[in-house]
Amino acid sequence: MDLPVDADRLREDMGANAAFGRIADDDPEKRGRTNLTGTEANRAARDRLVERFEDAGLAVAVDAVGNLVGTWTPDSADPDAAPVASGSHLDSVPEGGIFDGPLGVYAALESVRAMRDSDIEPTRPVAVVSFTEEEGATFGDGLLGSSVATGVTAPDEALALENDAGETLGEALGRIGYRGDDAIDPASWSAFCELHVEQDTALEEAGADAGVVTTITGITHCEAAIEGEANHAGATAMDDRTDALAAASEFVLDVEAAANEVVATESESAVGTVGSLSVSPNATNVVPGRVEAGVDVRDVNTESMEAIVSAARDSLARLERERGVETTFERPFDVAPTPMSDRLRDAAHDAADAAGLTAIDLHSGAAHDAMRVARVTDASLLFAPSRDGISHNPREWTDWADCAAATEVLAGALARVASE
Amino acid sequence: MDLPVDADRLREDMGANAAFGRIADDDPEKRGRTNLTGTEANRAARDRLVERFEDAGLAVAVDAVGNLVGTWTPDSADPDAAPVASGSHLDSVPEGGIFDGPLGVYAALESVRAMRDSDIEPTRPVAVVSFTEEEGATFGDGLLGSSVATGVTAPDEALALENDAGETLGEALGRIGYRGDDAIDPASWSAFCELHVEQDTALEEAGADAGVVTTITGITHCEAAIEGEANHAGATAMDDRTDALAAASEFVLDVEAAANEVVATESESAVGTVGSLSVSPNATNVVPGRVEAGVDVRDVNTESMEAIVSAARDSLARLERERGVETTFERPFDVAPTPMSDRLRDAAHDAADAAGLTAIDLHSGAAHDAMRVARVTDASLLFAPSRDGISHNPREWTDWADCAAATEVLAGALARVASE
Repeated sequence: MDLPVDADRLREDMGANAAFGRIADDDPEKRGRTNLTGTEANRAARDRLVERFEDAGLAVAVDAVGNLVGTWTPDSADPDAAPVASGSHLDSVPEGGIFDGPLGVYAALESVRAMRDSDIEPTRPVAVVSFTEEEGATFGDGLLGSSVATGVTAPDEALALENDAGETLGEALGRIGYRGDDAIDPASWSAFCELHVEQDTALEEAGADAGVVTTITGITHCEAAIEGEANHAGATAMDDRTDALAAASEFVLDVEAAANEVVATESESAVGTVGSLSVSPNATNVVPGRVEAGVDVRDVNTESMEAIVSAARDSLARLERERGVETTFERPFDVAPTPMSDRLRDAAHDAADAAGLTAIDLHSGAAHDAMRVARVTDASLLFAPSRDGISHNPREWTDWADCAAATEVLAGALARVASE
Repeated sequence: MDLPVDADRLREDMGANAAFGRIADDDPEKRGRTNLTGTEANRAARDRLVERFEDAGLAVAVDAVGNLVGTWTPDSADPDAAPVASGSHLDSVPEGGIFDGPLGVYAALESVRAMRDSDIEPTRPVAVVSFTEEEGATFGDGLLGSSVATGVTAPDEALALENDAGETLGEALGRIGYRGDDAIDPASWSAFCELHVEQDTALEEAGADAGVVTTITGITHCEAAIEGEANHAGATAMDDRTDALAAASEFVLDVEAAANEVVATESESAVGTVGSLSVSPNATNVVPGRVEAGVDVRDVNTESMEAIVSAARDSLARLERERGVETTFERPFDVAPTPMSDRLRDAAHDAADAAGLTAIDLHSGAAHDAMRVARVTDASLLFAPSRDGISHNPREWTDWADCAAATEVLAGALARVASE
């Protein structure tokens, strides 16, 4: 069963969506957008998606936090059967790319249209999903819409989150007309399949058309604080210092070395990053007295994540002994690795084979809405290639032919699962 | 010739001055103050100093940038002889100590009063000086008043400097009544001697009453920028990264190691500090793309400063080769080491000997107004002990007996030089 998609129709949808929040730039390589939850650009992107749903004959639902679903119930389907769902998100980071999110939404819609235009006869309804605030750029919590839909976050808690202007999510959604009252419950879905751009280079390097994610990595965020003694940079002899930044520099390199060691010996997919560092008082002529560091650790298995976290703790203990600093270590965020559904992965590989496309297995180092949905039903995640792996950046790019090929794999997988 | 000072009178002055901008704190160990140029606290501190000048029979002068001088011309002196001057500053850093600056001003005043109360007969007038904005906390340029008085900075340039509220120095001084029109010209002084707290522990460790500075260290400020590639901390494999913060961490440790090496082999007084570090985008889940580092290098000789600066440059070159980052290095501030006057140092040692006090030679790692004055006349710098070397901090402390002892050395030195 091969299910051709209309590459031009998909490109037209993606191009139109890219205009909402477009970043003006003379460089044709920079086609970015800023589409933040609750802005006019976000309203316009949602309005257009709803129109496209209605044009395609999908029944539209909007829930309390603005998650959007368009459901196609073909004549061949039992309207009471658990639907197969697919989608992603329309919001972006500030000055992000045009593919991260929208490709998954419009590829799902194109898959429905391709099924409708074909002679296949799904036995289940097919739902196209757009989750609210996946990026967490405006209301602080990433995966927000899918967290609410899957019961991780209470709706009232989400609606009370505030943007920088002090407006709540509930107020912002009401203002743009997307605070709905429909129920959207992924637990009632038979399956969920999300297509997303890879944001790394595995597909590009393998020359593959699509990636089939085996596991979404676990994520831990740790916060380390290193307290030394702020002092005059001129009047304090080298021997008399307790320099918090010099200690923190060893910590940064220890975390990097620990991740490299785990990659070399245990798990190629492990990553450890000190992404943020705040220095006090942060003046050129003052020996730094305090540094706070934000650490991000991810992998497909818990053991290798713990190895990196342990190494970070050990580093701090060593710095206390050797440099006389005082340290604290907290771990405010910890999500275990999420394996994707085997039957949905098989469906994706079957679809790629049938279409004469190449699909390879890989893991996802980034969190996606599929991670939340996997809590309550079978979920899968497919990747389209990303040029040079650049993401969260106006230079993010996926060739239109690659968008269409990955969508063909998605459509084939959905058609299979919807006919089971 | 021994010249006893009135320890109680000095303490009363210091205590009264400490009240201007006092930081409320229940901890008796924290007796800090915030006395910023142009504030009401600064006006009050200046008003009291002027009153004290007048009470002691000193002729008051205020120049365009608010530098204050009170001149005592005893009957024994030739009123046209070049005066001997002594002083420091009344401003502080935010939440600074009560001794840094005011001790030098009020010790100079107490020295004049001690001479007046004694039977010595100076042949030169003696001037007590308070320079404006030594700390640079409000109008950005440290040593501001002494820079203008010694011709390093043009008065108009200084008066146009703005505080965070957009008010110029000229406006702020006018508002508090200290934009004067007298001429204050250190080049016309026979000598200048500044007493200051040490801000380090050499005197405490040696059990000495006073320090006689041999050289004020040179100071270089360098700015290094390290450009890597910002990328998704989860989706970017360890091998695919150009992490600007990991590179910067090596840079911080290289600068520290270079300074330690110079201390061990060439010059004990050398210091090298990376005091500031700014990370972009500085998010826990993003591989850092850019880091800017502020480097402070000081020593009493140029060669060892250059050795540390060279090591910093070499570090960046190595990081370009080994980590693929791009780097820049600038050196916006560079002041050569400033030797203090031999005859004034001798006078200080003679005064200490005569008073039965211990004075040791040391260098100053911090810049002081005496550094500027040394450009135009003989200058010297004396230190009083600082408990634990803590400075620019409410916990800064010098015992009252130590204040009096160091003032006695200053008074004896000034009496000697004023009688030459």
